[in-house]
Amino acid sequence: MNHRIITYTLGWVLNIEGVCLLLPLICSLIYKDSCSLLFLLCAGLCLVCGVALSLRQPKKKAMYAKEGFVIVALSWIVMSIFGALPFYLSGYIPNYIDALFETVSGFTTTGASVLSDVEALPKSLLFWRSFTHWIGGMGVLVFLVAILPLSGGGNMHLIKAESPGPAVSKLVPKVKSSAKILYGIYIIFTLLEVIFLLFGGMTLFEAFTLSFGTAGTGGFGLLNSSIGEYSSYVQIVITVFMIIFGIDFSLYYLILLRRFKTAVKSEELRAYIGIIALSVILITVNCRGLYESLFEAVKHSAFQVSSIITTTGFSTVDFDLWPSFSKTILVMLMFCGACAGSTGGGIKVSRLLILFKSICREIRIAAHPRMTKKITVNGRVVEHETVRNINVFLAVYIVIFFASLLIISLDNFGFTTNFTAVAAAFNNIGPGLAEVGPTRNFSLYSPLSTLILTFDMLAGRLEIFPLLVMLSPYTWKK
Amino acid sequence: MNHRIITYTLGWVLNIEGVCLLLPLICSLIYKDSCSLLFLLCAGLCLVCGVALSLRQPKKKAMYAKEGFVIVALSWIVMSIFGALPFYLSGYIPNYIDALFETVSGFTTTGASVLSDVEALPKSLLFWRSFTHWIGGMGVLVFLVAILPLSGGGNMHLIKAESPGPAVSKLVPKVKSSAKILYGIYIIFTLLEVIFLLFGGMTLFEAFTLSFGTAGTGGFGLLNSSIGEYSSYVQIVITVFMIIFGIDFSLYYLILLRRFKTAVKSEELRAYIGIIALSVILITVNCRGLYESLFEAVKHSAFQVSSIITTTGFSTVDFDLWPSFSKTILVMLMFCGACAGSTGGGIKVSRLLILFKSICREIRIAAHPRMTKKITVNGRVVEHETVRNINVFLAVYIVIFFASLLIISLDNFGFTTNFTAVAAAFNNIGPGLAEVGPTRNFSLYSPLSTLILTFDMLAGRLEIFPLLVMLSPYTWKK
Repeated sequence: MNHRIITYTLGWVLNIEGVCLLLPLICSLIYKDSCSLLFLLCAGLCLVCGVALSLRQPKKKAMYAKEGFVIVALSWIVMSIFGALPFYLSGYIPNYIDALFETVSGFTTTGASVLSDVEALPKSLLFWRSFTHWIGGMGVLVFLVAILPLSGGGNMHLIKAESPGPAVSKLVPKVKSSAKILYGIYIIFTLLEVIFLLFGGMTLFEAFTLSFGTAGTGGFGLLNSSIGEYSSYVQIVITVFMIIFGIDFSLYYLILLRRFKTAVKSEELRAYIGIIALSVILITVNCRGLYESLFEAVKHSAFQVSSIITTTGFSTVDFDLWPSFSKTILVMLMFCGACAGSTGGGIKVSRLLILFKSICREIRIAAHPRMTKKITVNGRVVEHETVRNINVFLAVYIVIFFASLLIISLDNFGFTTNFTAVAAAFNNIGPGLAEVGPTRNFSLYSPLSTLILTFDMLAGRLEIFPLLVMLSPYTWKK
Repeated sequence: MNHRIITYTLGWVLNIEGVCLLLPLICSLIYKDSCSLLFLLCAGLCLVCGVALSLRQPKKKAMYAKEGFVIVALSWIVMSIFGALPFYLSGYIPNYIDALFETVSGFTTTGASVLSDVEALPKSLLFWRSFTHWIGGMGVLVFLVAILPLSGGGNMHLIKAESPGPAVSKLVPKVKSSAKILYGIYIIFTLLEVIFLLFGGMTLFEAFTLSFGTAGTGGFGLLNSSIGEYSSYVQIVITVFMIIFGIDFSLYYLILLRRFKTAVKSEELRAYIGIIALSVILITVNCRGLYESLFEAVKHSAFQVSSIITTTGFSTVDFDLWPSFSKTILVMLMFCGACAGSTGGGIKVSRLLILFKSICREIRIAAHPRMTKKITVNGRVVEHETVRNINVFLAVYIVIFFASLLIISLDNFGFTTNFTAVAAAFNNIGPGLAEVGPTRNFSLYSPLSTLILTFDMLAGRLEIFPLLVMLSPYTWKK
């Protein structure tokens, strides 16, 4: 294990976080709220620690898979520990464990909150809260790879460990350039949403914070009613952008290269759009009676479906009051999640696609044992390694899910509350049902449960393995 | 597809069912209840259809995997359709779909009921209801293989398709002899339980029906309170026998051969006993305050844990009133299930064991990509085929689970009710939580949901693939 490269990279992560903390500082100075000194202090602390760690370059630049996993896991933990300070030190979240939960919820783009009154927060804190979504959405290590002159081989391990989905596709041969392109697309779409929201009569502050929440598929809003009080125009704009940010970013790169046909033929994209369309239709029919017009029913159905499948977690209505059938669809979408290579969480459509194909294959094998047919996606054979990895991912996903459910059930809330709380945290959604429904929050849980749900959010965002590799004794054996 | 061998075997299944229906007829004659003519009619109907189908032997005796799957799936469906007639024609379950549910629940050893007042049933019907558990526990095709001179190769396909667990181990080289040994052990343990229950002061009728329910890990009882009103002695006897019937029967054969060490070293057995012990301790601590003495707490905890993990479904208390933590443990045990090669349902301990080992392996591979280490159970390498099959099983299990959950949610009951209803049906448990808790029943669901849950019970008992192979168009292609 190359310890020096780990601390060196962690140092750079803290440097970036320190710089990021200057943005809410500027926000605080503009709106003259009480948090300027606080953010200056936090940014300073990050930079001091960061510079101290990154001052000396490591002698050995070699970085293997295990270092990649460990760096990613530790980066996210360290980032969250420092990122929680503004919430804690400002006194708005007086318990540090709760502040950590809120920050991890931000970075992992979950959007689950312990705050019952979001509107009481000063603007700079709200800005930081939403900005964590934006940082976590594309990933801080992808950013680091884009800007830092790290060694070539190591870059790929970092990207692999941080990016969501069963297999990472390099857009261009150079990892560094791929990372730059990804961030480029990310910034362009975010600015595009800002512009659209400004047209809807929003202030620059509102447009930016909500765009951060959408782009990272996070879900932290500015109002206690989430997106419910905004105009239909704003709700539709956010619906569309949620769907956009849930699509594999490499498809946008294909479109930039004018390879439209290849992009449109993506099986994952088709499945993703298909699932959204089917869910919207079913929920609209099921909830038609609750809304005055068909337009309202479609609008709310489309918003909630897009919000849940992309794991954003915004809401325009209290979907906990919907009929069971619609709620069950939403719970299923929680697990489904968005496309691989997007900023969304969950199991990912591509994984489900491959699982579905392997089921069909197994049924054919059961009837015709001598059949040999490989699984293909987009015309390409899916490697055995990938299939095995997905299967194990599913198994470990279930283990962590039920272990978490068991521990938080010690707090003695109902099964629906606990089940959807874990589902919402683990899949990085935000709200669940019942006691953790869209009009409630996660403050009801004990510190132990809060820590478990915090772990789940991290495990969900990093797709479990980085954390497990970090915690496995085998990794640290010589 | 060899159609003739399918109809021929189905004929024999009906013949056996016809003979089985003579037992409740005898019961009816002894207790002089109103059902004698009814059972005579049903037995006659079965035998007429059975003999008609099995009169002409098929020319080609070849039977391949796909015929095995199709025969098993069709046998269970046909058996249930005829087996439901006594409930329906007697008028005690006036709706045929409900009667079918009750019968499938019996054969699949689920024990979920649509009856709100079991005690109103005549003794012969109660006998038939419990006897279906005993027939379904070890499986009717295993019985057929044991008694019928079928061709050698086909026998193995039938056993493989009907027996629970990821891989079937032949006890002795001849399949026919293996089947005989299995039924021998099954009969001996059932009689042993009958004797123990007679010592507890039960009547012969009570002892037999409850033993059928325990042996098949079924769960149909004679009283509305399940096992709650019986003495502690009876409750403890049933606890022990539930655990016994949840163990892989091939281990008992090893013990008969005096290979004690090999039997005791079984990793699955150790995991099974370990899970039971841990669950009993956790629930006892969690529920201690609800019971007068530690003995009572341990007794009820052990009974409920054994009942759920073996998927029997008897109850001595209304565990729906237990704290969340204990209920969550029970829900997890529902999915866990008993050992492969037992009469229990669920995912099976051996599958979970292999999944757990493949997770550990994958974490090590993630850190050390060049590692090559195979998964072993009981010192033997688990074949790649088996691991793949388990993974696909898990995937298809989840798909069917959520699809069922979605459809039954149309009835608009709560999430806990629906989730545990599907869990209880699919894993062949019996009771769930909330509206389908141990003091309630399944009569609240609409005909559509009842059919879905009926399908789930069959899919759970046959471990999904026989039904899917039967329904797959590839199977029927020439």
